[in-house]
Amino acid sequence: LSMVVDVTVDFEPKGKTAQMPVGSTIAEAAQQVKVGIRSECGGQGSCGKCRVLVRNPSAVGEITQAERSHLSQVELESGYRLACQTKILRDVTIEIPAASRVESRKIQVLGLERKTELNPSLKKFYLMLPEPTLSDATPDLERLLEGLSKESKPRHPLKIDYDILKELPTILRKAHWNVAVVLWNNSRIIDVEPADKSPDFFGLAVDIGTSKIVGHLVNLTSGETVAIGSIENPQIVHGEDIITRIAFASTDDANLQTLQGLLIDGVNKVLREACAKAKVDPLRVYHVVGVGNTAMHHFFLGIKPKNVAVSPFTPAVKRQVDVSARTLRMETASTGIITFLPNIAGLVGADAIADLLATELCLSDERSLLIDMGTNTEVFVGNKEDVLCCSCASGPAFEGAHVTHGMRAVTGAIERVRISSGYDVEYKTIGGERPRGMCGSAMIDIVAEMLKRKIVNTRGKIDPAIETTRLCKRKGRGDTEFVVAWRDETATNKNITITQNDVGEIQLAKAAIEAGWTILLKQKEMQPQDLDRVFIAGAFGEYLNIENAKVIRLVPDVPANKVRFVGNAAVAGAKMALLSKDIREQAEDAANSVRYLELATDPDFNHEFTRALQFGTSGV
Amino acid sequence: LSMVVDVTVDFEPKGKTAQMPVGSTIAEAAQQVKVGIRSECGGQGSCGKCRVLVRNPSAVGEITQAERSHLSQVELESGYRLACQTKILRDVTIEIPAASRVESRKIQVLGLERKTELNPSLKKFYLMLPEPTLSDATPDLERLLEGLSKESKPRHPLKIDYDILKELPTILRKAHWNVAVVLWNNSRIIDVEPADKSPDFFGLAVDIGTSKIVGHLVNLTSGETVAIGSIENPQIVHGEDIITRIAFASTDDANLQTLQGLLIDGVNKVLREACAKAKVDPLRVYHVVGVGNTAMHHFFLGIKPKNVAVSPFTPAVKRQVDVSARTLRMETASTGIITFLPNIAGLVGADAIADLLATELCLSDERSLLIDMGTNTEVFVGNKEDVLCCSCASGPAFEGAHVTHGMRAVTGAIERVRISSGYDVEYKTIGGERPRGMCGSAMIDIVAEMLKRKIVNTRGKIDPAIETTRLCKRKGRGDTEFVVAWRDETATNKNITITQNDVGEIQLAKAAIEAGWTILLKQKEMQPQDLDRVFIAGAFGEYLNIENAKVIRLVPDVPANKVRFVGNAAVAGAKMALLSKDIREQAEDAANSVRYLELATDPDFNHEFTRALQFGTSGV
Repeated sequence: LSMVVDVTVDFEPKGKTAQMPVGSTIAEAAQQVKVGIRSECGGQGSCGKCRVLVRNPSAVGEITQAERSHLSQVELESGYRLACQTKILRDVTIEIPAASRVESRKIQVLGLERKTELNPSLKKFYLMLPEPTLSDATPDLERLLEGLSKESKPRHPLKIDYDILKELPTILRKAHWNVAVVLWNNSRIIDVEPADKSPDFFGLAVDIGTSKIVGHLVNLTSGETVAIGSIENPQIVHGEDIITRIAFASTDDANLQTLQGLLIDGVNKVLREACAKAKVDPLRVYHVVGVGNTAMHHFFLGIKPKNVAVSPFTPAVKRQVDVSARTLRMETASTGIITFLPNIAGLVGADAIADLLATELCLSDERSLLIDMGTNTEVFVGNKEDVLCCSCASGPAFEGAHVTHGMRAVTGAIERVRISSGYDVEYKTIGGERPRGMCGSAMIDIVAEMLKRKIVNTRGKIDPAIETTRLCKRKGRGDTEFVVAWRDETATNKNITITQNDVGEIQLAKAAIEAGWTILLKQKEMQPQDLDRVFIAGAFGEYLNIENAKVIRLVPDVPANKVRFVGNAAVAGAKMALLSKDIREQAEDAANSVRYLELATDPDFNHEFTRALQFGTSGV
Repeated sequence: LSMVVDVTVDFEPKGKTAQMPVGSTIAEAAQQVKVGIRSECGGQGSCGKCRVLVRNPSAVGEITQAERSHLSQVELESGYRLACQTKILRDVTIEIPAASRVESRKIQVLGLERKTELNPSLKKFYLMLPEPTLSDATPDLERLLEGLSKESKPRHPLKIDYDILKELPTILRKAHWNVAVVLWNNSRIIDVEPADKSPDFFGLAVDIGTSKIVGHLVNLTSGETVAIGSIENPQIVHGEDIITRIAFASTDDANLQTLQGLLIDGVNKVLREACAKAKVDPLRVYHVVGVGNTAMHHFFLGIKPKNVAVSPFTPAVKRQVDVSARTLRMETASTGIITFLPNIAGLVGADAIADLLATELCLSDERSLLIDMGTNTEVFVGNKEDVLCCSCASGPAFEGAHVTHGMRAVTGAIERVRISSGYDVEYKTIGGERPRGMCGSAMIDIVAEMLKRKIVNTRGKIDPAIETTRLCKRKGRGDTEFVVAWRDETATNKNITITQNDVGEIQLAKAAIEAGWTILLKQKEMQPQDLDRVFIAGAFGEYLNIENAKVIRLVPDVPANKVRFVGNAAVAGAKMALLSKDIREQAEDAANSVRYLELATDPDFNHEFTRALQFGTSGV
């Protein structure tokens, strides 16, 4: 019989307090009271991002091997620990340094929006029904359908949600037979209410990203976007990257339920935020269109995601899935419909379909290239005749991982860099604050500028002979590094540098992407100059310096006027599908017609990838 | 602050014990531990059927006015009380006399069964799917549908139950891609399982009657009925008649939920019983077809039944309703479908539709009359050209209510009677036991025999001048009565008699029915001799003496060879709909084509009813 004693854990500067059993980790306590601490490994002790400062070090357990490899002796002596490794023994106060906080990022909420004709899956009809009498005692539903048949011409017999049928006798009589009917997809009655209620009804387009959830609340009567809500993806406490979350979900069905629950809670939170801003009752939201990568799709629907992550990367379902809001515990109208747009493949999900919708890539005569950059980068090449796509394992370098001073595009991140011929550095940070690290667009700038200034050669090797005080050996590690910001300019009181190893990480990422579009262009027997349009989607958005991206061959060499940044195209595509059922059909058509090329099975891939590791030569 | 003290209530001879708060009634205690006590008024103290014997009378509260009007002084002194009126003050032992027990009745479980070609709404397909590879990573659902498209040709894109979709990746891999698919209505996948599981799958046809629930378990692979389950309708504790239950449900939504819950529990119990008999796992039952009157339909689906019972008697829905088993908490496969066949009108329900299916009345050239006798009697006249129907308020007399020695057709009930020219009586009881009362078929015999022997005249008046010791004045009530069984022959030690008042009740019941078929025949411009067939359905079944029924004009005067007893046609019709989706379509067609005549609005009704109160003259 073990006795469980609770201890108090105070978090600063959040001012939150957890009561935990002795022996819990600091990370568990933080999760309990929803204090966000960075983590990329999901608590394995391998990423070293969850540093916290323990105010009374004697209240916690022994320092682990993992901590010794991530924290310096000075840091350990100052009380720094890794939250996932440190067990709590007594009441304790924990300070979370700025660099370890999960903060609200610069979230790309506005995307390319194509003008969409309003033809939503939901329609509202107003009916004045005759009251039943002894000489016309037609049952309630048949009376309603008879009235409706004069307004709507369904191809198949209409269905009615069972919960609405149950209440129908009460609703009709309360409304004195003067009702508004909400019809889903010209096939299913999902609400009946007194005709004198507000005519407005709403939908939510939501992009469920690995790191963020963004929702647009749309008035389906007018087609207007009335508010936007967004939050960090709450699954982040179980790992920043998808693979860690899939591994967590695969060990136990309860874990999958936890991850599904977090997503549903997250989408509900976005719904509430947007509804609160627009003063809309969430119960007047009847349709949610969701997009996200295939893993998010599976998490949201509670489907085991394991097969998406292991060869041959098979999703459970391609076509769009409609589930009732009641089943998914969404806080919309309980009879509302939750649609998740179709997937193309295990690594090309509904978010990519949304890109296609927003760019009209599958409808246009113009030959287009679309690159949606992320930990997996999706690439599409083609036009309405034929579209080919692939997924590139570009990794999380551009999102700040595996790069010494890498960080996400949040306040304090360096986002733009120029290096002068005298090796001087100009940079710009998000929010204009003192720099804390570098985000992806800055990494591309730095590598391109170093190439231009010949600080690195085409093989990506830093030239140690360059004469500048910014170039030095990393203390005790034998790694050359280039100083981007001096310690007296930074918020961390440390130099922000780019190391030889960091350049290598960026090389790997861009090589994966370059090999992807190179192989697709080859398959389509096209040269970069044959492209009419190049779309850049994904996290960088408009912050990417396209000329530098061309220098490192992250994108092919096309005139700048052919390039369009499409920002968060995923939510734009989801919104289009919300506004028009024709677009929902286009999504289904795209999922069925786009040809997916598995790079792993392509005989050219190894060759192209090796070539693309060089910064110099073209493969097409 | 009131203190709740529990007392112990022992029931004999059931041997059950309840723990109840002081002040509970005996009826409540009985309900708590599921001891069945008769009741027709649902606990109002007005029917006097819930007599019990309190062994220690000092343990219960004061005698109420209602009890004084139903129990004699001798009975009260012996400890007899009404269960619904008597409050429990201390630990008490209650004996439930045989006459007050809800016993297993002679339930009509076998009905007329038409030979039905096996074409159920459920089909099973066996598929061997290719395993996914890197060069063919088709998503799981699309792989399944591709395999299925070779076997089944659905008119519309197939749907899949969300619960099955969620598990699909796991099931397919567990089954090594060798699966059996259960398809509903050629439109919806409701199960996927390893192909090597038993090929058999099952359906349940269930008749939800006001007083009983009967279910036939059917093997949908072979079409065979493999077991039958039946119980009393557990709603009976809230009133034996429908009106009492509707009143109860209408006072509070929670009461409606209680009544729905009792029905669902009841059907689950029937399912379990039948499955246990046939050694079938209830989870292999995928389809339930239910029938019942319109009130039972509403109770089962949780729809407020009030409008069915008040003018203009409007049901919530006419068409058949399909609901998932999960939603209704049925213990079949959770993805199974529960179908309730269509209603025609507030007082003509799916059970009447089932009669039509079983008799093929709407398909045949032959001109038919169908009378389904009960508290409400449904009457149909017509053939495939046109069918007219009505509902007659025949009341519960034939089921034993409002008749002094009336009882249901259970063990000890007199079911057949003959009166000799010397006024001697021959009778037969159910089970051959000493008589306890008379059931409906005996009442018809007695009145017919009394007419033949001129003990009553055509106006239904007992002739006091008849010389027999069986004729006497009821003590202290001024009512003439005829002794059917002498006290020394009976189980109750009391004479079993039929009173002037009882004859009046029977007269009212038969007049309602006679007026119904008379008006329908008139509307169709038909004479009794134009009828090719007369079907008698309902509680009496084959126990009805058809010649005596003709004597009192309960049925028209047609040759005996045209009359067919169709027994429990309701469950037979439900089973046919289970066996074939063509029959389900016939049910829908019947609901739409049969014309319902509201007797209350018919100008002939008062005249015909008044005439039919006489035993002599014909209205057609």
